[in-house]
Amino acid sequence: MSEQWLNSLITENAQLGYELAIKMSRMGIKYTQPSGEVREKLRPTYGENADSLIASSQVIAINFQTVSAANNYWRD
Amino acid sequence: MSEQWLNSLITENAQLGYELAIKMSRMGIKYTQPSGEVREKLRPTYGENADSLIASSQVIAINFQTVSAANNYWRD
Amino acid sequence: MSEQWLNSLITENAQLGYELAIKMSRMGIKYTQPSGEVREKLRPTYGENADSLIASSQVIAINFQTVSAANNYWRD
Amino acid sequence: MSEQWLNSLITENAQLGYELAIKMSRMGIKYTQPSGEVREKLRPTYGENADSLIASSQVIAINFQTVSAANNYWRD
Amino acid sequence: MSEQWLNSLITENAQLGYELAIKMSRMGIKYTQPSGEVREKLRPTYGENADSLIASSQVIAINFQTVSAANNYWRD
Amino acid sequence: MSEQWLNSLITENAQLGYELAIKMSRMGIKYTQPSGEVREKLRPTYGENADSLIASSQVIAINFQTVSAANNYWRD
Repeated sequence: MSEQWLNSLITENAQLGYELAIKMSRMGIKYTQPSGEVREKLRPTYGENADSLIASSQVIAINFQTVSAANNYWRD
Repeated sequence: MSEQWLNSLITENAQLGYELAIKMSRMGIKYTQPSGEVREKLRPTYGENADSLIASSQVIAINFQTVSAANNYWRD
Repeated sequence: MSEQWLNSLITENAQLGYELAIKMSRMGIKYTQPSGEVREKLRPTYGENADSLIASSQVIAINFQTVSAANNYWRD
Repeated sequence: MSEQWLNSLITENAQLGYELAIKMSRMGIKYTQPSGEVREKLRPTYGENADSLIASSQVIAINFQTVSAANNYWRD
Repeated sequence: MSEQWLNSLITENAQLGYELAIKMSRMGIKYTQPSGEVREKLRPTYGENADSLIASSQVIAINFQTVSAANNYWRD
Repeated sequence: MSEQWLNSLITENAQLGYELAIKMSRMGIKYTQPSGEVREKLRPTYGENADSLIASSQVIAINFQTVSAANNYWRD
Protein backbone atom coordinates (compact mmCIF):
# COMPACT_ATOMS: atom_id res chain seq x y z
CA MET A 1 0.00 0.00 0.00
CA SER A 2 1.97 2.96 -1.21
CA GLU A 3 -0.57 5.73 -0.60
CA GLN A 4 0.44 8.16 2.15
CA TRP A 5 -2.22 8.34 4.85
CA LEU A 6 -0.34 8.84 8.15
CA ASN A 7 1.90 11.86 8.09
CA SER A 8 1.99 12.57 11.77
CA LEU A 9 0.44 11.60 15.09
CA ILE A 10 0.22 15.24 16.12
CA THR A 11 -3.22 16.81 15.99
CA GLU A 12 -4.52 20.21 16.95
CA ASN A 13 -6.83 18.99 19.68
CA ALA A 14 -8.16 15.92 21.46
CA GLN A 15 -11.14 15.36 19.22
CA LEU A 16 -9.05 15.45 16.06
CA GLY A 17 -6.78 12.98 17.82
CA TYR A 18 -9.72 10.73 18.50
CA GLU A 19 -10.74 10.94 14.87
CA LEU A 20 -7.20 10.04 13.82
CA ALA A 21 -7.46 7.00 16.10
CA ILE A 22 -10.61 6.00 14.22
CA LYS A 23 -8.79 6.33 10.93
CA MET A 24 -5.91 4.20 12.23
CA SER A 25 -8.37 1.55 13.37
CA ARG A 26 -9.98 1.46 9.94
CA MET A 27 -6.63 1.30 8.19
CA GLY A 28 -5.74 -1.77 10.25
CA ILE A 29 -8.76 -3.43 8.71
CA LYS A 30 -7.99 -2.10 5.25
CA TYR A 31 -4.43 -3.44 5.26
CA THR A 32 -5.78 -6.85 6.28
CA GLN A 33 -8.66 -6.83 3.79
CA PRO A 34 -7.70 -4.54 0.90
CA SER A 35 -10.86 -5.16 -1.10
CA GLY A 36 -13.25 -2.27 -0.61
CA GLU A 37 -16.03 -4.40 -1.98
CA VAL A 38 -15.59 -7.08 0.66
CA ARG A 39 -15.30 -4.50 3.45
CA GLU A 40 -18.48 -2.81 2.25
CA LYS A 41 -20.29 -6.14 2.29
CA LEU A 42 -19.27 -6.70 5.92
CA ARG A 43 -20.43 -3.32 7.16
CA PRO A 44 -24.07 -4.27 7.95
CA THR A 45 -22.85 -7.38 9.78
CA TYR A 46 -20.72 -5.58 12.34
CA GLY A 47 -22.68 -2.33 12.31
CA GLU A 48 -25.69 -4.08 13.75
CA ASN A 49 -23.84 -6.38 16.10
CA ALA A 50 -23.35 -4.98 19.58
CA ASP A 51 -20.22 -7.00 20.31
CA SER A 52 -18.57 -5.93 17.06
CA LEU A 53 -19.33 -2.31 17.88
CA ILE A 54 -17.86 -2.67 21.36
CA ALA A 55 -14.77 -4.32 19.85
CA SER A 56 -14.45 -1.49 17.34
CA SER A 57 -14.61 1.04 20.14
CA GLN A 58 -11.86 -0.90 21.90
CA VAL A 59 -9.50 -0.71 18.93
CA ILE A 60 -10.15 3.02 18.73
CA ALA A 61 -9.41 3.32 22.44
CA ILE A 62 -6.06 1.58 22.03
CA ASN A 63 -5.08 3.75 19.09
CA PHE A 64 -6.22 6.83 20.98
CA GLN A 65 -3.81 5.94 23.78
CA THR A 66 -1.01 6.20 21.26
CA VAL A 67 -2.22 9.45 19.71
CA SER A 68 -2.82 10.99 23.15
CA ALA A 69 0.66 10.16 24.37
CA ALA A 70 2.14 11.53 21.14
CA ASN A 71 0.35 14.81 21.76
CA ASN A 72 1.27 14.92 25.42
CA TYR A 73 -2.46 14.75 26.06
CA TRP A 74 -3.01 18.22 24.58
CA ARG A 75 -2.20 19.52 28.06
CA ASP A 76 -0.81 22.89 27.02
CA MET B 1 -19.13 14.04 12.45
CA SER B 2 -18.61 17.73 12.91
CA GLU B 3 -20.17 18.21 16.34
CA GLN B 4 -17.65 19.10 19.06
CA TRP B 5 -17.76 16.61 21.93
CA LEU B 6 -14.19 16.26 23.18
CA ASN B 7 -12.68 19.56 24.18
CA SER B 8 -10.14 18.30 26.65
CA LEU B 9 -9.00 15.21 28.52
CA ILE B 10 -8.59 17.21 31.71
CA THR B 11 -11.25 16.73 34.35
CA GLU B 12 -11.68 18.07 37.84
CA ASN B 13 -11.45 14.72 39.57
CA ALA B 14 -11.13 10.99 39.03
CA GLN B 15 -14.82 10.23 38.83
CA LEU B 16 -15.44 12.88 36.18
CA GLY B 17 -12.48 11.34 34.37
CA TYR B 18 -14.12 7.94 34.57
CA GLU B 19 -17.33 9.39 33.20
CA LEU B 20 -15.41 10.99 30.34
CA ALA B 21 -13.95 7.55 29.60
CA ILE B 22 -17.50 6.22 29.37
CA LYS B 23 -18.40 8.97 26.94
CA MET B 24 -15.34 8.20 24.83
CA SER B 25 -16.28 4.52 24.77
CA ARG B 26 -19.77 5.36 23.59
CA MET B 27 -18.50 7.74 20.95
CA GLY B 28 -16.34 4.94 19.53
CA ILE B 29 -19.55 3.03 18.96
CA LYS B 30 -21.38 6.07 17.62
CA TYR B 31 -18.71 6.84 15.03
CA THR B 32 -18.88 3.22 13.86
CA GLN B 33 -22.68 3.05 13.87
CA PRO B 34 -24.01 6.60 13.42
CA SER B 35 -27.68 5.59 13.40
CA GLY B 36 -29.21 6.26 16.79
CA GLU B 37 -32.10 4.06 15.86
CA VAL B 38 -29.89 1.02 15.25
CA ARG B 39 -27.87 1.66 18.42
CA GLU B 40 -31.08 1.92 20.44
CA LYS B 41 -32.27 -1.39 19.00
CA LEU B 42 -29.05 -3.08 20.11
CA ARG B 43 -29.18 -1.82 23.68
CA PRO B 44 -31.26 -4.67 25.17
CA THR B 45 -29.02 -7.23 23.45
CA TYR B 46 -25.79 -6.14 25.10
CA GLY B 47 -27.37 -4.74 28.23
CA GLU B 48 -28.55 -8.18 29.24
CA ASN B 49 -25.52 -10.09 28.06
CA ALA B 50 -22.84 -10.56 30.69
CA ASP B 51 -19.98 -10.85 28.22
CA SER B 52 -21.01 -7.68 26.40
CA LEU B 53 -21.14 -5.83 29.71
CA ILE B 54 -17.69 -7.09 30.67
CA ALA B 55 -16.39 -6.04 27.25
CA SER B 56 -17.95 -2.59 27.70
CA SER B 57 -16.25 -2.23 31.05
CA GLN B 58 -12.98 -3.15 29.37
CA VAL B 59 -13.26 -0.40 26.77
CA ILE B 60 -14.01 2.07 29.55
CA ALA B 61 -10.95 0.82 31.45
CA ILE B 62 -8.72 1.41 28.42
CA ASN B 63 -10.07 4.89 27.86
CA PHE B 64 -9.74 5.62 31.57
CA GLN B 65 -6.03 4.78 31.36
CA THR B 66 -5.69 7.58 28.83
CA VAL B 67 -7.73 10.08 30.81
CA SER B 68 -5.90 9.21 34.03
CA ALA B 69 -2.49 9.71 32.48
CA ALA B 70 -3.64 13.01 30.97
CA ASN B 71 -4.64 14.20 34.43
CA ASN B 72 -1.48 12.93 36.07
CA TYR B 73 -3.78 10.65 38.05
CA TRP B 74 -5.30 13.61 39.91
CA ARG B 75 -2.42 13.22 42.34
CA ASP B 76 -2.24 16.82 43.49
CA MET C 1 -25.24 8.69 38.02
CA SER C 2 -24.66 11.40 40.57
CA GLU C 3 -23.50 9.28 43.51
CA GLN C 4 -19.84 9.82 44.43
CA TRP C 5 -17.88 6.55 44.32
CA LEU C 6 -14.39 7.43 43.05
CA ASN C 7 -12.73 10.05 45.18
CA SER C 8 -9.15 9.18 44.45
CA LEU C 9 -6.95 6.57 42.80
CA ILE C 10 -4.55 6.66 45.73
CA THR C 11 -4.70 3.71 48.11
CA GLU C 12 -2.69 2.75 51.13
CA ASN C 13 -1.24 -0.40 49.64
CA ALA C 14 -1.24 -2.67 46.60
CA GLN C 15 -4.05 -4.92 47.72
CA LEU C 16 -6.39 -2.02 48.38
CA GLY C 17 -5.40 -0.79 44.93
CA TYR C 18 -6.35 -4.12 43.46
CA GLU C 19 -9.68 -3.98 45.23
CA LEU C 20 -10.27 -0.48 43.88
CA ALA C 21 -9.57 -1.88 40.40
CA ILE C 22 -12.30 -4.46 41.03
CA LYS C 23 -14.70 -1.72 42.04
CA MET C 24 -13.86 0.26 38.92
CA SER C 25 -14.46 -2.82 36.76
CA ARG C 26 -17.86 -3.35 38.35
CA MET C 27 -18.78 0.30 37.95
CA GLY C 28 -18.08 0.03 34.24
CA ILE C 29 -20.76 -2.64 34.12
CA LYS C 30 -23.10 -0.68 36.36
CA TYR C 31 -22.93 2.46 34.21
CA THR C 32 -23.73 0.34 31.15
CA GLN C 33 -26.51 -1.63 32.84
CA PRO C 34 -27.90 0.49 35.67
CA SER C 35 -30.58 -2.00 36.68
CA GLY C 36 -29.40 -3.95 39.73
CA GLU C 37 -32.08 -6.49 39.07
CA VAL C 38 -30.77 -7.29 35.58
CA ARG C 39 -27.16 -7.42 36.80
CA GLU C 40 -28.17 -9.79 39.59
CA LYS C 41 -29.91 -12.04 37.08
CA LEU C 42 -26.73 -12.23 34.99
CA ARG C 43 -24.45 -13.16 37.87
CA PRO C 44 -24.88 -16.96 37.69
CA THR C 45 -24.30 -16.87 33.93
CA TYR C 46 -20.86 -15.31 34.04
CA GLY C 47 -19.91 -16.62 37.48
CA GLU C 48 -20.00 -20.17 36.20
CA ASN C 49 -18.51 -19.48 32.79
CA ALA C 50 -14.74 -19.80 32.64
CA ASP C 51 -14.30 -17.39 29.75
CA SER C 52 -16.41 -14.72 31.44
CA LEU C 53 -14.33 -15.09 34.58
CA ILE C 54 -11.09 -14.77 32.61
CA ALA C 55 -12.49 -11.69 30.86
CA SER C 56 -13.46 -10.20 34.23
CA SER C 57 -9.95 -10.77 35.51
CA GLN C 58 -8.65 -9.00 32.41
CA VAL C 59 -10.72 -5.87 33.03
CA ILE C 60 -9.46 -5.83 36.62
CA ALA C 61 -5.89 -6.17 35.33
CA ILE C 62 -6.32 -3.17 33.05
CA ASN C 63 -7.82 -1.04 35.80
CA PHE C 64 -5.09 -2.17 38.17
CA GLN C 65 -2.49 -0.87 35.72
CA THR C 66 -4.04 2.56 36.12
CA VAL C 67 -4.28 2.39 39.90
CA SER C 68 -0.73 1.07 40.19
CA ALA C 69 0.71 3.86 38.08
CA ALA C 70 -1.26 6.42 40.09
CA ASN C 71 0.29 5.07 43.26
CA ASN C 72 3.77 4.89 41.79
CA TYR C 73 3.52 1.15 42.38
CA TRP C 74 3.55 1.64 46.16
CA ARG C 75 7.33 1.59 45.86
CA ASP C 76 8.08 3.72 48.89
CA MET D 1 -12.20 -10.70 51.14
CA SER D 2 -10.12 -9.72 54.10
CA GLU D 3 -7.21 -12.13 53.70
CA GLN D 4 -3.92 -10.41 52.83
CA TRP D 5 -2.45 -11.77 49.60
CA LEU D 6 -0.78 -8.81 47.88
CA ASN D 7 1.78 -7.15 50.07
CA SER D 8 3.95 -5.69 47.37
CA LEU D 9 4.55 -5.66 43.64
CA ILE D 10 8.30 -5.87 44.16
CA THR D 11 9.89 -9.24 43.49
CA GLU D 12 13.46 -10.45 43.52
CA ASN D 13 13.62 -11.27 39.84
CA ALA D 14 11.63 -11.40 36.61
CA GLN D 15 10.41 -14.95 36.99
CA LEU D 16 9.04 -14.33 40.46
CA GLY D 17 7.38 -11.26 38.97
CA TYR D 18 5.80 -13.41 36.30
CA GLU D 19 4.55 -15.80 38.94
CA LEU D 20 3.08 -12.90 40.89
CA ALA D 21 1.28 -11.86 37.69
CA ILE D 22 -0.21 -15.36 37.53
CA LYS D 23 -1.37 -15.05 41.12
CA MET D 24 -2.95 -11.67 40.40
CA SER D 25 -4.75 -13.13 37.37
CA ARG D 26 -6.14 -15.95 39.47
CA MET D 27 -7.22 -13.59 42.22
CA GLY D 28 -9.21 -11.60 39.67
CA ILE D 29 -11.16 -14.76 39.03
CA LYS D 30 -11.44 -15.61 42.70
CA TYR D 31 -12.86 -12.21 43.63
CA THR D 32 -15.46 -12.62 40.87
CA GLN D 33 -16.29 -16.23 41.73
CA PRO D 34 -15.46 -16.78 45.40
CA SER D 35 -16.65 -20.39 45.49
CA GLY D 36 -13.66 -22.71 45.25
CA GLU D 37 -16.00 -25.53 44.39
CA VAL D 38 -17.37 -23.75 41.32
CA ARG D 39 -13.89 -22.67 40.20
CA GLU D 40 -12.65 -26.25 40.54
CA LYS D 41 -15.55 -27.48 38.43
CA LEU D 42 -14.63 -25.03 35.67
CA ARG D 43 -10.97 -26.00 35.51
CA PRO D 44 -11.27 -28.87 32.99
CA THR D 45 -13.41 -26.66 30.73
CA TYR D 46 -10.85 -23.91 30.25
CA GLY D 47 -7.78 -26.08 30.77
CA GLU D 48 -8.59 -28.05 27.64
CA ASN D 49 -9.82 -25.14 25.57
CA ALA D 50 -7.15 -23.46 23.48
CA ASP D 51 -8.88 -20.09 23.38
CA SER D 52 -9.36 -20.02 27.13
CA LEU D 53 -5.69 -20.81 27.62
CA ILE D 54 -4.66 -18.04 25.23
CA ALA D 55 -6.99 -15.64 27.07
CA SER D 56 -5.47 -16.70 30.39
CA SER D 57 -2.00 -16.02 29.05
CA GLN D 58 -3.20 -12.59 27.98
CA VAL D 59 -4.41 -11.66 31.46
CA ILE D 60 -1.07 -12.78 32.85
CA ALA D 61 0.70 -10.64 30.23
CA ILE D 62 -1.27 -7.56 31.27
CA ASN D 63 -0.58 -8.11 34.95
CA PHE D 64 3.08 -8.76 34.17
CA GLN D 65 3.28 -5.35 32.52
CA THR D 66 2.29 -3.84 35.85
CA VAL D 67 4.68 -5.95 37.90
CA SER D 68 7.54 -5.30 35.47
CA ALA D 69 7.06 -1.55 35.57
CA ALA D 70 6.89 -1.66 39.37
CA ASN D 71 10.23 -3.43 39.44
CA ASN D 72 11.79 -1.13 36.87
CA TYR D 73 12.15 -4.25 34.74
CA TRP D 74 14.72 -5.75 37.13
CA ARG D 75 17.29 -3.79 35.14
CA ASP D 76 19.79 -3.36 37.94
CA MET E 1 13.06 -19.41 13.07
CA SER E 2 16.52 -18.17 12.30
CA GLU E 3 15.72 -15.67 9.55
CA GLN E 4 16.34 -12.07 10.56
CA TRP E 5 13.21 -9.96 10.15
CA LEU E 6 13.28 -7.41 12.98
CA ASN E 7 16.42 -5.35 12.97
CA SER E 8 15.10 -2.28 14.69
CA LEU E 9 11.92 -0.63 15.92
CA ILE E 10 13.06 2.71 14.55
CA THR E 11 11.36 3.87 11.37
CA GLU E 12 11.61 7.04 9.34
CA ASN E 13 8.04 8.13 9.88
CA ALA E 14 4.72 7.18 11.45
CA GLN E 15 3.32 5.34 8.48
CA LEU E 16 6.38 3.13 8.14
CA GLY E 17 6.01 2.50 11.85
CA TYR E 18 2.43 1.45 11.34
CA GLU E 19 3.50 -0.88 8.58
CA LEU E 20 6.15 -2.38 10.84
CA ALA E 21 3.40 -2.97 13.40
CA ILE E 22 1.49 -4.89 10.73
CA LYS E 23 4.54 -6.99 10.00
CA MET E 24 5.00 -7.72 13.71
CA SER E 25 1.35 -8.76 13.97
CA ARG E 26 1.75 -11.15 11.06
CA MET E 27 4.95 -12.59 12.45
CA GLY E 28 3.13 -13.40 15.69
CA ILE E 29 0.84 -15.56 13.62
CA LYS E 30 3.68 -17.02 11.59
CA TYR E 31 5.63 -18.10 14.67
CA THR E 32 2.49 -19.80 16.00
CA GLN E 33 1.56 -21.42 12.67
CA PRO E 34 4.76 -21.81 10.62
CA SER E 35 3.07 -23.53 7.67
CA GLY E 36 2.49 -21.00 4.90
CA GLU E 37 0.06 -23.41 3.32
CA VAL E 38 -2.18 -23.52 6.38
CA ARG E 39 -2.01 -19.73 6.84
CA GLU E 40 -2.96 -19.23 3.18
CA LYS E 41 -5.91 -21.55 3.62
CA LEU E 42 -7.15 -19.49 6.57
CA ARG E 43 -6.95 -16.14 4.79
CA PRO E 44 -10.46 -16.15 3.24
CA THR E 45 -11.95 -17.16 6.57
CA TYR E 46 -10.71 -14.19 8.54
CA GLY E 47 -10.55 -11.79 5.60
CA GLU E 48 -14.29 -11.95 5.20
CA ASN E 49 -15.16 -12.04 8.87
CA ALA E 50 -15.76 -8.64 10.42
CA ASP E 51 -14.79 -9.70 13.94
CA SER E 52 -11.53 -11.25 12.76
CA LEU E 53 -10.70 -8.04 10.91
CA ILE E 54 -11.43 -5.93 13.97
CA ALA E 55 -9.27 -8.28 16.06
CA SER E 56 -6.46 -7.99 13.51
CA SER E 57 -6.66 -4.22 13.69
CA GLN E 58 -6.42 -4.49 17.46
CA VAL E 59 -3.20 -6.49 17.36
CA ILE E 60 -1.75 -3.92 14.97
CA ALA E 61 -2.82 -1.15 17.35
CA ILE E 62 -1.01 -2.82 20.25
CA ASN E 63 2.16 -3.33 18.23
CA PHE E 64 1.93 0.24 16.97
CA GLN E 65 1.94 1.46 20.58
CA THR E 66 5.31 -0.19 20.98
CA VAL E 67 6.75 1.11 17.71
CA SER E 68 5.44 4.63 18.41
CA ALA E 69 7.01 4.75 21.86
CA ALA E 70 10.29 3.45 20.42
CA ASN E 71 10.29 6.30 17.92
CA ASN E 72 9.30 8.88 20.50
CA TYR E 73 6.16 9.34 18.41
CA TRP E 74 8.15 10.83 15.51
CA ARG E 75 7.76 14.14 17.32
CA ASP E 76 10.92 15.78 16.04
CA MET F 1 6.97 -24.81 38.66
CA SER F 2 10.47 -24.57 39.99
CA GLU F 3 12.43 -24.64 36.71
CA GLN F 4 14.17 -21.37 35.90
CA TRP F 5 13.09 -20.02 32.52
CA LEU F 6 13.05 -16.22 32.85
CA ASN F 7 16.36 -14.86 33.97
CA SER F 8 16.08 -11.42 32.51
CA LEU F 9 13.98 -9.26 30.21
CA ILE F 10 17.10 -7.84 28.58
CA THR F 11 17.92 -9.16 25.12
CA GLU F 12 20.61 -8.30 22.62
CA ASN F 13 18.26 -7.01 19.96
CA ALA F 14 14.63 -6.48 19.04
CA GLN F 15 14.10 -9.82 17.36
CA LEU F 16 15.42 -11.76 20.34
CA GLY F 17 13.09 -9.61 22.43
CA TYR F 18 10.19 -10.61 20.24
CA GLU F 19 11.14 -14.25 20.61
CA LEU F 20 11.29 -13.85 24.38
CA ALA F 21 7.76 -12.40 24.19
CA ILE F 22 6.68 -15.56 22.38
CA LYS F 23 8.24 -17.68 25.10
CA MET F 24 6.48 -15.66 27.79
CA SER F 25 3.16 -16.10 25.98
CA ARG F 26 3.66 -19.85 25.83
CA MET F 27 4.66 -20.03 29.46
CA GLY F 28 1.39 -18.31 30.40
CA ILE F 29 -0.37 -21.23 28.78
CA LYS F 30 1.96 -23.78 30.33
CA TYR F 31 1.41 -22.48 33.85
CA THR F 32 -2.35 -22.68 33.29
CA GLN F 33 -2.25 -26.12 31.64
CA PRO F 34 0.87 -27.93 32.88
CA SER F 35 0.18 -31.15 30.99
CA GLY F 36 2.29 -31.23 27.83
CA GLU F 37 0.09 -33.98 26.51
CA VAL F 38 -3.07 -31.85 26.71
CA ARG F 39 -1.31 -28.83 25.22
CA GLU F 40 -0.04 -30.96 22.34
CA LYS F 41 -3.54 -32.24 21.70
CA LEU F 42 -4.83 -28.66 21.45
CA ARG F 43 -2.21 -27.49 18.98
CA PRO F 44 -4.06 -28.46 15.75
CA THR F 45 -7.22 -26.80 17.06
CA TYR F 46 -5.78 -23.35 17.50
CA GLY F 47 -3.09 -23.66 14.83
CA GLU F 48 -5.72 -23.94 12.15
CA ASN F 49 -8.15 -21.43 13.60
CA ALA F 50 -7.66 -17.88 12.37
CA ASP F 51 -9.11 -16.24 15.48
CA SER F 52 -6.92 -18.28 17.79
CA LEU F 53 -3.88 -17.29 15.78
CA ILE F 54 -4.83 -13.62 15.92
CA ALA F 55 -5.37 -13.94 19.67
CA SER F 56 -1.97 -15.59 20.04
CA SER F 57 -0.36 -12.75 18.15
CA GLN F 58 -2.09 -10.33 20.51
CA VAL F 59 -0.65 -11.97 23.61
CA ILE F 60 2.79 -11.83 22.03
CA ALA F 61 2.24 -8.14 21.24
CA ILE F 62 1.39 -7.40 24.87
CA ASN F 63 4.41 -9.27 26.17
CA PHE F 64 6.58 -7.56 23.58
CA GLN F 65 5.49 -4.18 24.94
CA THR F 66 6.97 -5.22 28.27
CA VAL F 67 10.19 -6.58 26.81
CA SER F 68 10.63 -3.52 24.58
CA ALA F 69 10.22 -1.11 27.45
CA ALA F 70 12.66 -3.14 29.53
CA ASN F 71 15.23 -2.82 26.77
CA ASN F 72 14.56 0.86 26.23
CA TYR F 73 13.46 -0.15 22.74
CA TRP F 74 17.01 -1.17 21.77
CA ARG F 75 17.49 2.50 20.84
CA ASP F 76 21.22 2.67 21.44
